[in-house]
Amino acid sequence: MLPRTETLLFCSARAQLVDEVIRPHLANGDIVLLDRYADSTLAYQGYGHQRNIGLIQKVLDFATGGLIPDLTLLFDIEPEVGLRRRQKGGGEWNRLDAYQLQYHKRVRKGYLKMANEDAKRWKIVDASQKPDMVQSDIQNELLLFFSKIS
Amino acid sequence: MLPRTETLLFCSARAQLVDEVIRPHLANGDIVLLDRYADSTLAYQGYGHQRNIGLIQKVLDFATGGLIPDLTLLFDIEPEVGLRRRQKGGGEWNRLDAYQLQYHKRVRKGYLKMANEDAKRWKIVDASQKPDMVQSDIQNELLLFFSKIS
Repeated sequence: MLPRTETLLFCSARAQLVDEVIRPHLANGDIVLLDRYADSTLAYQGYGHQRNIGLIQKVLDFATGGLIPDLTLLFDIEPEVGLRRRQKGGGEWNRLDAYQLQYHKRVRKGYLKMANEDAKRWKIVDASQKPDMVQSDIQNELLLFFSKIS
Repeated sequence: MLPRTETLLFCSARAQLVDEVIRPHLANGDIVLLDRYADSTLAYQGYGHQRNIGLIQKVLDFATGGLIPDLTLLFDIEPEVGLRRRQKGGGEWNRLDAYQLQYHKRVRKGYLKMANEDAKRWKIVDASQKPDMVQSDIQNELLLFFSKIS
């Protein structure tokens, strides 16, 4: 499959998800938690495949109708370490994992670029730590976030 | 299905078609004939559903990589007549046909707007004529086109 086709199919799924699931919950006052969203498309399909970021951003704006998260947590880790963890039997190995290490390095760089460009929305969690430390960092970020908006 | 999702799925299919089929044929010096392309997405999903034309154009640019036809023939007909013909048993009735007449009127208006804005590429064929007249108009447009480029 072409990277462009892959990007558009991810965007199709996101478009439907936004209007069918996310917006109704938000309208209800619920908290919506996603483990990937538009930024992942930019990271994997844009930065990873070295495509036109500005144009993919337009496609994503169209797909999401401009809906942006209030808080984004980036679990940052060296690609070598992340890939090794995955192979050892955490989650299932998928097609995207099969790309070369160089690809994952570009993806990480893209994520860090986005996080640094909008430090108010993005919080970087050091995912190389032990699980309980990662969890404690997440809790701290969430407590800080909710203390600001409540 | 959401109009936005529909648009993105059509764009996914077009992206794959462009690189997998159309570009290799063009590189071979072949003539490629399509019975719908990016402009149909603009007409049906953009003008028909009254969406942001500029943004859909960006999504299409991304999908096609900017590939534009040299010649586009618009078979123009009153929606009332076109829909009646279709119901009588020409082609199969599909989901898009089921939209209301108002929708098809907006689609036609969109097509005519695009054709008038780029009269060099678009040629309008009066499809309300008898089939042999329509065919003869097509032949004339093609002869004219090829006489110009050869």
